[in-house]
Amino acid sequence: MSFRFEIEAVDGKARAGRFFTPHGVVQTPVFMPVGTLGTVKAVAQDVLEELGVEILLNNTYHLYLRPGVDMVRSLGGVQRFMAWDKPILTDSGGFQVFSLSELREVTEDGVAFRSHLDGSSHMFTPESSSAAQIGLGADIIMAFDECTEHPASRERASGSMEMTLRWLKRSRDYFEAHKEEVVWFGGIPSGAKALGLSGDRYGTAKAVPLQNPEPGDRRGDRGPSTSAARDAASAQDDTPESSSVAPGQTQALFGIVQGGMYPDLRRESAQRTVEIDLPGYAIGGLSVGEPRPMTYEMVDAAIPYLPENKPRYLMGVGTPEEIVHYVAQGVDMMDCVLPTRAARHGLLFTSEGRLTIKNARFAGDEGPIDPKCGCKVCGRYSRAYLRHLYASNELLAQTLNTVHNLAYYLDTMRRVRQAILLGEFATFLSGVKPPHLSVP
Amino acid sequence: MSFRFEIEAVDGKARAGRFFTPHGVVQTPVFMPVGTLGTVKAVAQDVLEELGVEILLNNTYHLYLRPGVDMVRSLGGVQRFMAWDKPILTDSGGFQVFSLSELREVTEDGVAFRSHLDGSSHMFTPESSSAAQIGLGADIIMAFDECTEHPASRERASGSMEMTLRWLKRSRDYFEAHKEEVVWFGGIPSGAKALGLSGDRYGTAKAVPLQNPEPGDRRGDRGPSTSAARDAASAQDDTPESSSVAPGQTQALFGIVQGGMYPDLRRESAQRTVEIDLPGYAIGGLSVGEPRPMTYEMVDAAIPYLPENKPRYLMGVGTPEEIVHYVAQGVDMMDCVLPTRAARHGLLFTSEGRLTIKNARFAGDEGPIDPKCGCKVCGRYSRAYLRHLYASNELLAQTLNTVHNLAYYLDTMRRVRQAILLGEFATFLSGVKPPHLSVP
Repeated sequence: MSFRFEIEAVDGKARAGRFFTPHGVVQTPVFMPVGTLGTVKAVAQDVLEELGVEILLNNTYHLYLRPGVDMVRSLGGVQRFMAWDKPILTDSGGFQVFSLSELREVTEDGVAFRSHLDGSSHMFTPESSSAAQIGLGADIIMAFDECTEHPASRERASGSMEMTLRWLKRSRDYFEAHKEEVVWFGGIPSGAKALGLSGDRYGTAKAVPLQNPEPGDRRGDRGPSTSAARDAASAQDDTPESSSVAPGQTQALFGIVQGGMYPDLRRESAQRTVEIDLPGYAIGGLSVGEPRPMTYEMVDAAIPYLPENKPRYLMGVGTPEEIVHYVAQGVDMMDCVLPTRAARHGLLFTSEGRLTIKNARFAGDEGPIDPKCGCKVCGRYSRAYLRHLYASNELLAQTLNTVHNLAYYLDTMRRVRQAILLGEFATFLSGVKPPHLSVP
Repeated sequence: MSFRFEIEAVDGKARAGRFFTPHGVVQTPVFMPVGTLGTVKAVAQDVLEELGVEILLNNTYHLYLRPGVDMVRSLGGVQRFMAWDKPILTDSGGFQVFSLSELREVTEDGVAFRSHLDGSSHMFTPESSSAAQIGLGADIIMAFDECTEHPASRERASGSMEMTLRWLKRSRDYFEAHKEEVVWFGGIPSGAKALGLSGDRYGTAKAVPLQNPEPGDRRGDRGPSTSAARDAASAQDDTPESSSVAPGQTQALFGIVQGGMYPDLRRESAQRTVEIDLPGYAIGGLSVGEPRPMTYEMVDAAIPYLPENKPRYLMGVGTPEEIVHYVAQGVDMMDCVLPTRAARHGLLFTSEGRLTIKNARFAGDEGPIDPKCGCKVCGRYSRAYLRHLYASNELLAQTLNTVHNLAYYLDTMRRVRQAILLGEFATFLSGVKPPHLSVP
């Protein structure tokens, strides 16, 4: 087993722990920023490292279309492709094709869909989704599921849940038969840097030689540059030495609980999903338009039936207040586009509430976004400047807003984790606005 | 005098030196990145610092429209507004309104123009341009000139040159009468950080109290954050302590040589411009569509009549090869949108020539943009990844491409300076492709 989860502390239903993947360790509870196309939009990887991001998410649907699974695999997998030497999780593509609505058709075999880019026809099945995710090479991959729409009749939700369970077995079977095909299965030598700053950029490809290495590595041939440039480069280069990946490791496949908005179906889905022994389990099909109290009810319905010694991943949530409350329910992992997408629309999260930076009242405001925030944006730039950037459609607005929002989410999770470790989570939670009152 | 220029070495006509401004020292020859609206598009200020940028340019026309001169002044001037604690140069707005063509009308008084944003009517005169630049508070400001169009008859070029000379006197007179109104004339206390991380963000405004300070500074009220966040912030925060600005310093006003494409007019313009004693002189009205050999001819016509002990600023140029050749002609300062604008269109400069990153041949290329470049982009990301980002319209493409192109320009200037200091500039120059062969 390449994946391991350790619980360090339990406080109520909340847990603090860590999981180990081939590309490194992740402390939980964790919020995973979304890097759809191999980039957390507008933020460079060294800035994500500075923010303390330990794992991020890529979308299989998007990378499958651009640049394509074979291309990413030939470039060493998602980690090396995006020069991110830490854990990555890919979704199955199921949610994305679900979102295509008009462009998809669901059958027992899988989902036929048309590309949102060029209308070309494609098909995701449990097997092809697993194949794509093995090709992409993330550390954690997801079983192909059907995200039941809301509202759905009980009959529809039940039938959909049953298909997701059948698809789970197919995903698992394909994965077990092909898991050794992941590009880094042969290992990555110790000391090799993320994007192959060592001479041997194809070290991993040798173990699974799907393509021929190029002769030599141009990076080894670097000519002299001025010492000033070298000093500048080395001062900037705070990329840590890459963790080696030991040979023989594989990805971790997580199953997904469905069941619509029916608590008994959620329980049944959880019970039958965990019959398949997997290193982690997710709760999917939530945050699809239902009222928030219903989301909490569905989480509560499933959680007791998920094993305590495996991480629990609640997909696609939530606001800064909500993610704290989900942790209180026993959730260990979450992801959401909210902090990044909201940032690009000028909506900033602060300890004092939401802030719409384009608002004219910030035009002359010399204060930081959030006086209690320790991020590099709050440490340097004024609301007035950020408002000016946003009002002027400057690219830097999107970068700085995103950095702040991610810092706010990650700092929230760090404080949550610390509170659990100290046994003070109940106190912490009591200071967080009840989630049903929060406005996304 | 607040501005001082020192020549350290001369090699042929090329000079290596440094100039001192209220916000710091700049080594010459220098290429100044363009930060039109108070931001070098897509690049955060800490990254500009990492790149070794010592001075950048803001456009008066753009800041005059957004967020407005009074707003920038009330926020402490351009340096504090954009949290850039180093020298800044503003242009006069003359070139921008010249570029508006249909929207402007030139008279002896000045230029009436309509905003490209909302069509509103405005007027720039030598006096109002100087007033705007004093309000913005850059370290170096430019006299208001008319950028003669190309082609232009000799009569037209001569008349335009005469008006620029009359406008120079008006610019100088206004500046001399009002130069003490610059927001930092009262000084900035030692140890105050760029964007007022000290408690006294309004320290400078006290000397010239155009507005009332707010009671207290929210940055002083920061609550506790987690130690992880603080560590991360302090690890990221490599902003040096701000240079103090001694009381009583003023901006440096530069004059601009015009004269169209007539060498004798260029000479006459230079001779008559330097009759006004100013700390530096620029050559304007070039790179406006004329063939490149003509540009060199005009520079050669003017340079001998500019004082040796003052910096010479060639405005709005050029390609990486051209800027080396302009230094060979005796130019000390240059600016151009080329590296930043080209980057946003996927055109990258390398030691091996231009590279259009969207080209399909880079789709699987694991090499860096430039194997000889020491920048953080070349140290981390592959051409394949950058091609993917660009092809997918990802914001990060614009950031990373811009960082590389700026690094390439700045590294070129560092190598040029080093060659001059070592007396090896002729050798260096012989290795640079003749500029008339270069394609922008």
